[in-house]
Amino acid sequence: MFDVCLLGTGGMRPLPGRYLTSCLIRYGGHSVLIDTGEGTQITLCRTGWSFKDIDTILFTHYHADHIAGLPGLLLTIGNSGREEPITLMGPQGLRVVVEGLLRITGKLPFQVLGRELTKEEIEEQREICIGDMFVTPGKCSHGGMPCVGYSVAIKRRPRFDPERAKAAGIPLKLWRVLQQGEEAVGEDGTLYTPDMVLAEERKGMKITYSTDSRPTKAICRLAEGSDLFICEGMYGDPEKQEKTEEKHHMSFQEAATMAARAGVKELWLTHYSPAMPDPEEYLEVARAIFPNTHLGKDRMIREFKYED
Amino acid sequence: MFDVCLLGTGGMRPLPGRYLTSCLIRYGGHSVLIDTGEGTQITLCRTGWSFKDIDTILFTHYHADHIAGLPGLLLTIGNSGREEPITLMGPQGLRVVVEGLLRITGKLPFQVLGRELTKEEIEEQREICIGDMFVTPGKCSHGGMPCVGYSVAIKRRPRFDPERAKAAGIPLKLWRVLQQGEEAVGEDGTLYTPDMVLAEERKGMKITYSTDSRPTKAICRLAEGSDLFICEGMYGDPEKQEKTEEKHHMSFQEAATMAARAGVKELWLTHYSPAMPDPEEYLEVARAIFPNTHLGKDRMIREFKYED
Repeated sequence: MFDVCLLGTGGMRPLPGRYLTSCLIRYGGHSVLIDTGEGTQITLCRTGWSFKDIDTILFTHYHADHIAGLPGLLLTIGNSGREEPITLMGPQGLRVVVEGLLRITGKLPFQVLGRELTKEEIEEQREICIGDMFVTPGKCSHGGMPCVGYSVAIKRRPRFDPERAKAAGIPLKLWRVLQQGEEAVGEDGTLYTPDMVLAEERKGMKITYSTDSRPTKAICRLAEGSDLFICEGMYGDPEKQEKTEEKHHMSFQEAATMAARAGVKELWLTHYSPAMPDPEEYLEVARAIFPNTHLGKDRMIREFKYED
Repeated sequence: MFDVCLLGTGGMRPLPGRYLTSCLIRYGGHSVLIDTGEGTQITLCRTGWSFKDIDTILFTHYHADHIAGLPGLLLTIGNSGREEPITLMGPQGLRVVVEGLLRITGKLPFQVLGRELTKEEIEEQREICIGDMFVTPGKCSHGGMPCVGYSVAIKRRPRFDPERAKAAGIPLKLWRVLQQGEEAVGEDGTLYTPDMVLAEERKGMKITYSTDSRPTKAICRLAEGSDLFICEGMYGDPEKQEKTEEKHHMSFQEAATMAARAGVKELWLTHYSPAMPDPEEYLEVARAIFPNTHLGKDRMIREFKYED
């Protein structure tokens, strides 16, 4: 299935019992990690999930609380026995930052590939295929620092409909190829296409992750129709709204408004200010706007299953 | 007084409940921190000790498990309100590593000063004055990576002896200057020296800290007569001796042997391998060699008071 684990929920600095905001997504034996603040490897260790399966690390931006844990994490992945390359992906600046941080790792037992997102990929929200997952970046607004949110989606191949295949008179030995979404040519030269044997589209799954941003239309568009929207809620107290804006962050109210506009199914708040020890106090502020809001907690896990 | 806190006791990677080896020493309102692996700021936060008083950070070497926590720590020190400069000190390579790591901190509210130790300072174990503390580096042997141990000492001015001052006929108004260790000239031109009014030397305090090294004569010399010797014990199991040597580390037995040779009062073991979940199992191995051995634990604190 499609598993999502919110490894940490803190902003700015890790606290005892609250690690920095990071999210791990597993699907089909592969894992995508979003952000690696200081301590990410400790909270990941607590989940018991594999380090070795992490193929791709996505960065929202390069403030320390989102990337300082990278060197230690890569070393621990190395010690887990991984030898296959790992791809790091993020907005402009990736190479410079990673080159600086990797000065303390020595030689790693795998290749580290950098994939800096282009402006076009971000602005046009172009889908990037990573194994069986589809990652789409979306532009955030974080006071001049290049910053992106991501949606990670699983698409489902439509179900094969043997009745349609029979009705269309398609030779039995071509069924398998068509079922896999490829065209096939019969012995008599007839071209058969997958739509001749496949039933209607099936809904896949999609989660969207966004932190360190003012609300933007781009994030709203990115999150559209998500099964889960993980969004920053730096402050819950409406009296801190001014401070939230000044620091280029997002409040509970704003995150809930975005969730409602984007028509997501569920909202998890995260990236709490260290000055807000008990986010629970303000949950109702968000629920008044978007009822299916939940407070992110360290190592909160969701298994997504297909609806049908 | 002179307070020592072993912030973490882990080697290689931070574990839930075992942070990476780091040590904070407080004296007279100033703090010296040795090593800042990933998570150091979290364990420091648990102690309740001040971030703002950290004036100097000493690095043994630049493997990630000893320095990856630096960017986050500096940001948190900045958020504590510190504006005075911080000095980073370590062996060869300091500037390159720090320049790389600080790419993710943005502008800090204080100046970061780099003080790379020279080969002569390390080889000759030259004393460096830091406020009221005296720091001495000593050469470690860690497989080619420049690496040092440190001793941190407090010296005490000898007590003033009014009987001696009277007997020497020193004018009363010069007593204060002489007491402070300075020379003074009387109205009649007579030169008075501090030794005329001061009693015998008084023992100060000294702790020595060494990790990531094979046993060396230099560390033994550095640790000589220490009140406390904090030393790596990567493995306790005598069967892991070969592995310990291969990885350029030190075993419980070797640390205890060093402690005995250096004539220290007390030994704390630290920097345990993640593969050794229960160091307690091997404590007796070290105690058979050096009875006053203790197992370092995260946030173990010792207040040192003068003997007299």
